[in-house]
Amino acid sequence: MPKINLPTDITPEMKEAKKDYLDRHTPHVVAPAKVKKGETFQVLVRMGQDYVHPDLEEHYIQYLQLYKGDKLLATAIYNPKASTAGKDPASGHQQAAFFVSLDAPAKFSAMSYCTLHGLWVSEEVHVEVE
Amino acid sequence: MPKINLPTDITPEMKEAKKDYLDRHTPHVVAPAKVKKGETFQVLVRMGQDYVHPDLEEHYIQYLQLYKGDKLLATAIYNPKASTAGKDPASGHQQAAFFVSLDAPAKFSAMSYCTLHGLWVSEEVHVEVE
Amino acid sequence: MPKINLPTDITPEMKEAKKDYLDRHTPHVVAPAKVKKGETFQVLVRMGQDYVHPDLEEHYIQYLQLYKGDKLLATAIYNPKASTAGKDPASGHQQAAFFVSLDAPAKFSAMSYCTLHGLWVSEEVHVEVE
Amino acid sequence: MPKINLPTDITPEMKEAKKDYLDRHTPHVVAPAKVKKGETFQVLVRMGQDYVHPDLEEHYIQYLQLYKGDKLLATAIYNPKASTAGKDPASGHQQAAFFVSLDAPAKFSAMSYCTLHGLWVSEEVHVEVE
Repeated sequence: MPKINLPTDITPEMKEAKKDYLDRHTPHVVAPAKVKKGETFQVLVRMGQDYVHPDLEEHYIQYLQLYKGDKLLATAIYNPKASTAGKDPASGHQQAAFFVSLDAPAKFSAMSYCTLHGLWVSEEVHVEVE
Repeated sequence: MPKINLPTDITPEMKEAKKDYLDRHTPHVVAPAKVKKGETFQVLVRMGQDYVHPDLEEHYIQYLQLYKGDKLLATAIYNPKASTAGKDPASGHQQAAFFVSLDAPAKFSAMSYCTLHGLWVSEEVHVEVE
Repeated sequence: MPKINLPTDITPEMKEAKKDYLDRHTPHVVAPAKVKKGETFQVLVRMGQDYVHPDLEEHYIQYLQLYKGDKLLATAIYNPKASTAGKDPASGHQQAAFFVSLDAPAKFSAMSYCTLHGLWVSEEVHVEVE
Repeated sequence: MPKINLPTDITPEMKEAKKDYLDRHTPHVVAPAKVKKGETFQVLVRMGQDYVHPDLEEHYIQYLQLYKGDKLLATAIYNPKASTAGKDPASGHQQAAFFVSLDAPAKFSAMSYCTLHGLWVSEEVHVEVE
């Protein structure tokens, strides 16, 4: 199995020392802090916050998954080079937006698979319901 | 095999007579008419333009695919009921947004699979590059 | 959209003239002619009967799907070069075996996606139940 | 995120106490101990060794993945009830066979996702090359 990289495995020291590598491999969940019950909202899953992951045939993000609590909601599977036509293929920044609604507060998280560096799990993002 | 429903199979008469059924089963590609070369932009694939497809365990959109010309770029695979917590599950409206860039004009299209009604292909959407 | 190649599109003349190309792109379903009700049996989906499809980064079978009647049962998604380590990568012959049971006679079929040559649909295979 | 159940998390005591639950949730990799270089062979991934996992709409194995070392080779994605027509749906026993070849000894492993009980990782299976 590839290494399964959990956010809790990454110490502040590692984060500082290998910021680029760790940031662009960790999926980030971007969602509103609070939503209305039953209202559709977007949850973005993207690789990297400050750095971008390449999108090359020999090194790309093959899939991104969105979880709500312990339930898988959706998986986006990519063919390489989808995101970088016309620009530097090192600047991939793979991302997908899903659309969900809530009946109660929820924690969203994501998992991604890099064809060279294995499985990565995001931090959890809490969404309140008003 | 399930029936593969192509936009060219649907006559204006059918579209009028079975508007609800046809609209909510046909994926629609929403993209800008013109983009800058190498700039990242969003391509939304959503079921239905005026009607919504249900998102129930026994009847849901299991996957949506985005194609550029004849190339598959990405597939979003869904578990049922992801989009309808807290509201009428008949109001699913499954959709996914992908993020791409172009080096030349392109035609985007989509294919979807409904667990009860088979495979459906969208119309093509042209995106110019300036 | 890529061309969706149906078995009914392929005339005997085409099949003779482009035998290699057509054979290795068409998925074949291999299943027993008759099974016992409720008994697990294997259904193999493989590319090509007499010819093999390459398994190269720039040209491979990305997915195979198995359908029972108009229902999707399973999809196998491949990363390139899984099937050809230690031999000529032109000799890929991508295939997957699924395991199912029946309560009534059924028709199985398959669809595949080649990263260069689009979507291909198999002939149907009938399985009787005794 | 769901719990990611690793074989190293499961102590002999747990295995004894919760044998049924643990066995049917853990993917098993079945492969020959030794193969010829470049020869195609089957690698079976199946849920459970002595117990079977149900295949119900509300509780099923949604996907199985096969890894070679730290590389994902293939993913099989299932729709529910594919494996249990005509028999007790509690007797699912989801499994998929993939076909690979080797140029050097390899370790195969698998990961599965149960819609109720999260992600599970198999033990590694070593295959020698002669």
